[in-house]
Amino acid sequence: MGKDFALAIDIGGTKTIVGLVDQNGKILIQKKFPTNTDLTGEEHLSICHQFFVKCLSIASISREEVAGIGVSVPGTVNPEKGILLQAPYAGWKNLEVKSFFKQIWPEKPVQVENDVNACAIGEKCFGIGKEISHYAWVTISTGIGGALINNDRLVHGQQFLAGEIGHFIVEWEKGLQCGCGNFGCLEAHASGTAITRMARKIIQDAGDSSELNRYLLEQEWALNAESVAEAAYHGVEEAIEIYEKAAVYLGRVFSYMINLFNPGAIVVGGGVSRSFSLLEPTIHSIIQKSVIGESNKSVPILKTELGYEAGLIGAASLVMRGTKTC
Amino acid sequence: MGKDFALAIDIGGTKTIVGLVDQNGKILIQKKFPTNTDLTGEEHLSICHQFFVKCLSIASISREEVAGIGVSVPGTVNPEKGILLQAPYAGWKNLEVKSFFKQIWPEKPVQVENDVNACAIGEKCFGIGKEISHYAWVTISTGIGGALINNDRLVHGQQFLAGEIGHFIVEWEKGLQCGCGNFGCLEAHASGTAITRMARKIIQDAGDSSELNRYLLEQEWALNAESVAEAAYHGVEEAIEIYEKAAVYLGRVFSYMINLFNPGAIVVGGGVSRSFSLLEPTIHSIIQKSVIGESNKSVPILKTELGYEAGLIGAASLVMRGTKTC
Repeated sequence: MGKDFALAIDIGGTKTIVGLVDQNGKILIQKKFPTNTDLTGEEHLSICHQFFVKCLSIASISREEVAGIGVSVPGTVNPEKGILLQAPYAGWKNLEVKSFFKQIWPEKPVQVENDVNACAIGEKCFGIGKEISHYAWVTISTGIGGALINNDRLVHGQQFLAGEIGHFIVEWEKGLQCGCGNFGCLEAHASGTAITRMARKIIQDAGDSSELNRYLLEQEWALNAESVAEAAYHGVEEAIEIYEKAAVYLGRVFSYMINLFNPGAIVVGGGVSRSFSLLEPTIHSIIQKSVIGESNKSVPILKTELGYEAGLIGAASLVMRGTKTC
Repeated sequence: MGKDFALAIDIGGTKTIVGLVDQNGKILIQKKFPTNTDLTGEEHLSICHQFFVKCLSIASISREEVAGIGVSVPGTVNPEKGILLQAPYAGWKNLEVKSFFKQIWPEKPVQVENDVNACAIGEKCFGIGKEISHYAWVTISTGIGGALINNDRLVHGQQFLAGEIGHFIVEWEKGLQCGCGNFGCLEAHASGTAITRMARKIIQDAGDSSELNRYLLEQEWALNAESVAEAAYHGVEEAIEIYEKAAVYLGRVFSYMINLFNPGAIVVGGGVSRSFSLLEPTIHSIIQKSVIGESNKSVPILKTELGYEAGLIGAASLVMRGTKTC
């Protein structure tokens, strides 16, 4: 019997997903549970392992059928050593993820990657990247991250830090402070968090006269990037303007990526990317006037083909690369 | 006898250099002559060939000792086909450089690259790149260009357009028009041309009261980026401020390159880089507050080890790559 399934873990700042993914990038089974940051990293990995065992049992997959274990984590990762160097959301440092799983599964390959990088590789194995060798991946979610695929391979950078587009300064004069400590980062001005913050400020300043506020109250929706997007789709001007503002900053950073890297496409994923049609016209119009070369002006900006589970599929792709040519 | 010498051509917008370069990147002989843009591209290549023959004759190098022909040109190049796709300064389009030389030297490898890319490869073979696998190259000259070396290999991009940092928009509101047609490009605000333009404006506005104007007249120096640099070194405040202004823009773009590519170093070359000590403090201070990661904050910014002839040595390295491991 072939080794047809990857055990995949997608550790996020608030939730972790564990699952089994087949060679076509299809998720057979997945289990979602909170990322308990009060635990040590090793304790959290132990819980992940328990869920692995459950998944295998439920799906009736034998140990022999497992191609390997792929782990996707936000934070700085040394993929060569399989170590999570730093995970600011949990305070975990130098977590030896690969060693941990190798103790339990010594015969299996174990691969660990930064979450955005894993998505970009997942796209290579199972999505748009099957057709394109050279592209950029952008996650627009609570935060913003990027990854570069050059000639079918991920660009890691000298210290595995490549792709940090969320920390491109987009407001040099009156920038808002970012989680990283700097002021004016893209992430502070165009992420899901930033969109929510912009909306909250408008509502606080305008109070009852805010159409956005009235709409969210009517719908009984909590204030977040998704509900602001819904309001924008409904035609609420304040919400449209918030997304346009975010799109201006995104467009500028996309234009830098295009000029520097000349990608064949930019693939976007993450929660906010589901509202990408609100961002797209402004992003395209900015790119038009801020890149060089006709082909750069028309670089396709595509939504991920991996869907909402890009992180989990990306984690699986880390070990599927050995069995597939990606 | 080994094939120890490269025939190198560095075609610039105003001058062309033809020379013989040995396996250590040492120039044995070189001939400089104007790039006559009234000629067709083929006519200009014919002249280059005549100079080749002269160089070989003067240096008593036989045809057998020639490893190959490397050509460096500003403009968009398809290095796989050896075609200069577009050279805006000369109006040359789709110039088949490789075919041209292959007709005369059918037994020799012929390689053609964009000039900035050639410099970056030259640095790999003969300079700082011998020690660093992952770095960015920046030319600050009449224009501004960049190139990326990832795992010892040049990043070309989807349409061979990677590295266009000269066209990063650095002034979104009141940008000056760039040669490319866009407004606010780095090249329009921080190149040698931009430095000269800033100085000219100051002198025009201030007239006799301009210290810079008085200094240049005293020294009987023409107004250009180099003389403004000399004035800055002499302590002329207006000149210092011009370089600081250019450095602010360069620092911003360097920070984008660092965040996206996480290079092990940035290597700078080109005429203006000879005055790099005027730019360096401001560039470093901007990088400090606009990149993420401690290692990124301290990325070395180094002057090229190839000196003023980086273009010619870079051209040679294109064919020396085969005989050296770079």
